[in-house]
Amino acid sequence: MNASIITIGDEILIGQIVDTNSAAIARHLNGAGIVVREKVSIGDDREQIVATLRRALTESQVVVITGGLGPTKDDITKKTLAELFGSELVNDPTVAAHVERMLAERGIAFNELNRSQALVPACCTVLFNAHGTAPGMWFEHEGRVVVSLPGVPFEMEHLMQDEVMPRLKARFALKQIVHRTLITSGLAESMLAERIEAWENALPPYLKLAYLPNPGTVRLRLSAYEVEGESVSQEIERRFAALRTLIPEHVVGFETATLQELVHDMLTERRQTLATAESCTGGTIASRFTTIPGASAYFRCGVVSYSNEAKADVLGVDPATIERFGAVSEQVARQMAEGARRIAGADYAVATTGIAGPAGGSDEKPVGTVWIAVAAPRGTVAVRKQCGTDRGQIIDRASSQAIALLREQIAKDS
Amino acid sequence: MNASIITIGDEILIGQIVDTNSAAIARHLNGAGIVVREKVSIGDDREQIVATLRRALTESQVVVITGGLGPTKDDITKKTLAELFGSELVNDPTVAAHVERMLAERGIAFNELNRSQALVPACCTVLFNAHGTAPGMWFEHEGRVVVSLPGVPFEMEHLMQDEVMPRLKARFALKQIVHRTLITSGLAESMLAERIEAWENALPPYLKLAYLPNPGTVRLRLSAYEVEGESVSQEIERRFAALRTLIPEHVVGFETATLQELVHDMLTERRQTLATAESCTGGTIASRFTTIPGASAYFRCGVVSYSNEAKADVLGVDPATIERFGAVSEQVARQMAEGARRIAGADYAVATTGIAGPAGGSDEKPVGTVWIAVAAPRGTVAVRKQCGTDRGQIIDRASSQAIALLREQIAKDS
Repeated sequence: MNASIITIGDEILIGQIVDTNSAAIARHLNGAGIVVREKVSIGDDREQIVATLRRALTESQVVVITGGLGPTKDDITKKTLAELFGSELVNDPTVAAHVERMLAERGIAFNELNRSQALVPACCTVLFNAHGTAPGMWFEHEGRVVVSLPGVPFEMEHLMQDEVMPRLKARFALKQIVHRTLITSGLAESMLAERIEAWENALPPYLKLAYLPNPGTVRLRLSAYEVEGESVSQEIERRFAALRTLIPEHVVGFETATLQELVHDMLTERRQTLATAESCTGGTIASRFTTIPGASAYFRCGVVSYSNEAKADVLGVDPATIERFGAVSEQVARQMAEGARRIAGADYAVATTGIAGPAGGSDEKPVGTVWIAVAAPRGTVAVRKQCGTDRGQIIDRASSQAIALLREQIAKDS
Repeated sequence: MNASIITIGDEILIGQIVDTNSAAIARHLNGAGIVVREKVSIGDDREQIVATLRRALTESQVVVITGGLGPTKDDITKKTLAELFGSELVNDPTVAAHVERMLAERGIAFNELNRSQALVPACCTVLFNAHGTAPGMWFEHEGRVVVSLPGVPFEMEHLMQDEVMPRLKARFALKQIVHRTLITSGLAESMLAERIEAWENALPPYLKLAYLPNPGTVRLRLSAYEVEGESVSQEIERRFAALRTLIPEHVVGFETATLQELVHDMLTERRQTLATAESCTGGTIASRFTTIPGASAYFRCGVVSYSNEAKADVLGVDPATIERFGAVSEQVARQMAEGARRIAGADYAVATTGIAGPAGGSDEKPVGTVWIAVAAPRGTVAVRKQCGTDRGQIIDRASSQAIALLREQIAKDS
């Protein structure tokens, strides 16, 4: 079964915000065996909303729309849907009471605009939004389903999970979609493709292979669409097992786990602890771990030692070492990792020091130069990496490379 | 003039990655006066690529495509475009030499797959990709322009900036698009709309107003499409000046600056310094600042004190205070901020301690409870905030609220 996703908002088309909603919705639909055919983003424009929705309904049995449900004049999705489905806007007393209560909790008076949020097309089923003031709406139209959700990501997320998915599963007889992802590390995409060519060519036609390169890893995803039963999952398991014998040293994990999730799982299982000492990555490594639920079981302390004084005073890096080798050096990276491990009383510590740019580069240490160190119970290792030319890219890659080195060192201790 | 953006890749449709490219491309096009009509994401499917591109060409004079240009078999964009434009794939020796050199630098052998990256449709103009192995391509077709770019975000970004935009500006006589954004803080969207209703109703029809709510702020964007000359910018300035007199205490900045960029500008200008002490936000506040080029001028040190030991040992929080009031308390937040300010020798420090969940909540302090403190030269302030129910949302909101409080305190010292 096919679905289309439509996200509405001028702010998406001018690039003022990145649309994360459609990816989240796609994951929900996919997980229930619904194939997302396309995702379309359009502006707050009546004619374009109508034209896009009409076209989507010719291609998909389910259309999920987000955005354009706010109380202000620029938001026109609700009115447009009511017109399209030939329905009046009527007051929903449950929504009205909920909006009033939510606003009261935040000390906000209930005004005309808020009252308009309780107006819904008479023909829809209201999907109760416990986390916000704009309700979700479920329409049935000529055997197809159209769902309209607010654009606030976590409100959309809760509505998809609690309201939309259970209803879709009850409404349609859904087939399965199976995706399995194997994570490799240490081989570039083209070298990996060469190494596994015979394996790839022998795949059955219903299994689709995708290469997903990232800094530090290449993921291989096998997908089977609209299948039935367990046999496909088992076939994918067999294919991955065969692949593992071809590149045993490069397989680091499965599924869509990130490198930090792999480290998270290892540390949690072994009841070991982690500290971070970041200069150029500026807290990104710490935040990648602490975003994962349960991180407090192993994450002890992170230090963002941007200034040389912080490196010396907080982490105990020898100022003479900074003076002699520079802040971006193997010696400083090692002392940062060892200092973080010591002050946090942690089993492992990972440290980064580099030049994120755009200023600060030299011939010897150009922008993008990063030293990464990992301090472990059996000693400290350090590597130099060239992480690109753009500040955001350097921070991202250096963080990934640091977590990759950390994973490798923890894995060695098993 | 209209443009369409098409992003290609099964990984987008199954929600395995978030499409950030289309927002970046939209910003480039918009900045040059090109109106993005729609953004469409589709899979690596020949027929769908052809159908979507044909439709886009009926609506837009410029179509920018990203993705599907990798060396592996799942990537079919290049072959499909060659077929659609009735052109052969031919070897481009400049691209071939570049790919070979790039791989050699990374110690990777040049194989058949890499050789295929130097094949390009004979009818296109090659856009040299200095940062990657897949070249960009520029097609002219019945008076319209189709551009195909690699999906790797920073490669796409450099090609848009260095190759695509200069060519579009040379090829078409472009009109201007003007967007100006005013940032408000302290009023909910509906209250703000009520306060400025008369001002909004008096706007001329060619100025489009949008409300963009975020944690801690509501942005108001005025847009004028396809205009000429300076008069519209001046009109928007006048309208915003009038608005400012209506809600003087709630206007905190202009343009698409984030709260951290506002703080960045204030600290840089005043030559003052910043430290952070984060518990529940786990490094997110530090990373929001350190991602901005030039942050090293004022960012001294950040501490992610996840464990109680780290709060005591690194930041000097009194263990008896933690014991008596709990780690999530006004007293601990204040001591964290004051400790960070002291150890970093900074002018300002911001601290967070809260319950990000999903575990750890209680009746008195449910999940989402966050204490935020800012230590400044004239003393310390602390506030309690309820930041939602979902871990990611709590971290995001708590970070924004903390930076909002920091901005407010710095602004008071002017």
